[in-house]
Amino acid sequence: MKVEVNGRFEDYRTVWMKDSIVHMIDQLQLPYKFTVHRSEDHRKTAAAIKNMVVRGAPAIGATSAYAMAQAACEFPGGDFLSFLRHMEAAKKLLEETRPTAHDLAYAADSMMRELKKAASVKEAKKQLTAAAAKYADDSAERCRMIGVSGAGLIKDGARILTHCNAGALGCVDYGTALSPIRYANDRGKKLFVYVDETRPRCQGSKLTAWELTQERIDYVVIADNAAGYFMKKGDVDLVIVGADRVTANGDVVNKIGTYEKAVLAKENGIPFYVAAPKSTIDARLRTGDAVEIEERSGDEVLYAWGEADGAIRKVRIAPEGAKARNPGFDITPARYVTKIITEEGAYSPREAVKAIR
Amino acid sequence: MKVEVNGRFEDYRTVWMKDSIVHMIDQLQLPYKFTVHRSEDHRKTAAAIKNMVVRGAPAIGATSAYAMAQAACEFPGGDFLSFLRHMEAAKKLLEETRPTAHDLAYAADSMMRELKKAASVKEAKKQLTAAAAKYADDSAERCRMIGVSGAGLIKDGARILTHCNAGALGCVDYGTALSPIRYANDRGKKLFVYVDETRPRCQGSKLTAWELTQERIDYVVIADNAAGYFMKKGDVDLVIVGADRVTANGDVVNKIGTYEKAVLAKENGIPFYVAAPKSTIDARLRTGDAVEIEERSGDEVLYAWGEADGAIRKVRIAPEGAKARNPGFDITPARYVTKIITEEGAYSPREAVKAIR
Repeated sequence: MKVEVNGRFEDYRTVWMKDSIVHMIDQLQLPYKFTVHRSEDHRKTAAAIKNMVVRGAPAIGATSAYAMAQAACEFPGGDFLSFLRHMEAAKKLLEETRPTAHDLAYAADSMMRELKKAASVKEAKKQLTAAAAKYADDSAERCRMIGVSGAGLIKDGARILTHCNAGALGCVDYGTALSPIRYANDRGKKLFVYVDETRPRCQGSKLTAWELTQERIDYVVIADNAAGYFMKKGDVDLVIVGADRVTANGDVVNKIGTYEKAVLAKENGIPFYVAAPKSTIDARLRTGDAVEIEERSGDEVLYAWGEADGAIRKVRIAPEGAKARNPGFDITPARYVTKIITEEGAYSPREAVKAIR
Repeated sequence: MKVEVNGRFEDYRTVWMKDSIVHMIDQLQLPYKFTVHRSEDHRKTAAAIKNMVVRGAPAIGATSAYAMAQAACEFPGGDFLSFLRHMEAAKKLLEETRPTAHDLAYAADSMMRELKKAASVKEAKKQLTAAAAKYADDSAERCRMIGVSGAGLIKDGARILTHCNAGALGCVDYGTALSPIRYANDRGKKLFVYVDETRPRCQGSKLTAWELTQERIDYVVIADNAAGYFMKKGDVDLVIVGADRVTANGDVVNKIGTYEKAVLAKENGIPFYVAAPKSTIDARLRTGDAVEIEERSGDEVLYAWGEADGAIRKVRIAPEGAKARNPGFDITPARYVTKIITEEGAYSPREAVKAIR
């Protein structure tokens, strides 16, 4: 992704490894300050995942792969059995950082499989370093291809609504929902994006707005309450969002508020696209109703976090003692989804599930 | 309305006058601190309206009536012509505080009509003081009657969603959307309220939550994004909101986000009620499309205001230089509205407009 640093555009990934040091764009400081967080060893990398310096399923998958490569390189001796135990401990440490993150465990598992192919500790260190780099490259490439798949759906002059951050910052690069937008913008199409602020965590106003600023794509932030207003006015040509999971019948599990936007899009005859890599499709689950929805801390609703006087502050926006409910995700039934855009093409929800079989 | 002060419940109105001093619940300090703002003269009362110590159409209408009574009492001499000029100046000062507030000008106008009936300055002072008190009493009574009209629609055990603050704080007392809820609660019905936080100004999490806390009505604050989630889950029995204006065809102009909730209610088979005094129905406007929607400052979206360390602070929740759009209201077509609840009864949108003719 493009990042403007001291007036010059530079190309960044969300996470990368150089000389055994894992580098991450520090998302805790965004959109206020662009800094790169450096983790010298796998424990620090695990801590960075836990503290949400890096977030978003594909991004923490790649970070976890890099952390496993770091752990391998940190091992001092040559005894393969001790090495294996060391690596199992590293994997456990990583898995405990974000227990519900499927990509994180998946990446650590594939590194373990890679490791077991090696003939020696020395060889394993080399192979894991290469495998982690390949994991990140493949992940980025899948997102780039989502952009290619979705390009035809975004016409010159399109006015697009997006919800939450399904951008490069949640992936290794390119993003999911933002990938077709980037692709179209790079090819000179003129675009305008309505960015839902996405309460309670404001990933829209904080992260998506930051990414679009960097890419010089025209946008406005709107209150989540205003999305329907602009749709009804005829100011939105299409909606595009990411997905945390897609079930066998094409239901989409994504950030809270996605369902509201999907219903409003349908009501106003606006296409509603979901951009997600094939790995998001979970054919073991028959419908979205089988997915348990994480209920997060009510404090995210009762407080707001933002910048004042150069520091990030927490302010209370409700009465003392108020209670809140805070479901993190919702389920959008397949009938509201026009197409699911994957790295292999854009399909109707039912076709998408068949296509991955 | 009930307010808990030092552990005891006391009965308050949003605004009242005693010994020529206008008292207002200071809404700039809510929900953090309950204080009563005192205005000794009509200029200070006008300033309190301008600074939004008091807000909400019926509440500022009554405040404006009280300010006119204050202005009358402040006049020193006995010359009726000078008195009239003094009163015209007071009316102008009031009208300039919130230029788009219809109730404010309406109240000042009725005070002027009252004044012209008086035979002397002395008599006018007496009459205006009585007329302002009557204006506030009538306004409160209309809201109380909305509660009576809507009572039958709220069953024991009802789970209610509301948006913004259509409570006692926006009126002289009782509220509009909150009036039937108060009435049902007072009669011992067990209720549960989902309070939309109502970004960008958070009147839900700040004011409605505060009122429900005082009334000991069970509630949770939710992100506006979560309303659809709870509706789809079957956790919401009815939605009730206020209105800024109702047009001749039954379209409802109200706080941004109302349209989204109405569409979601219809999609999920949930009744959607609008509570508003008859004076809100503007039969001169054929449909909602004729209403110009106020676009407010984007800063309301790009910043949040809340309490930290005992002070109210402003924090930035978007990148520096980000732009926002901030429509303050939206239009809900009549077909999404189940009933309009007025002080004279609950009607279908079309019937409501006929009923006022």
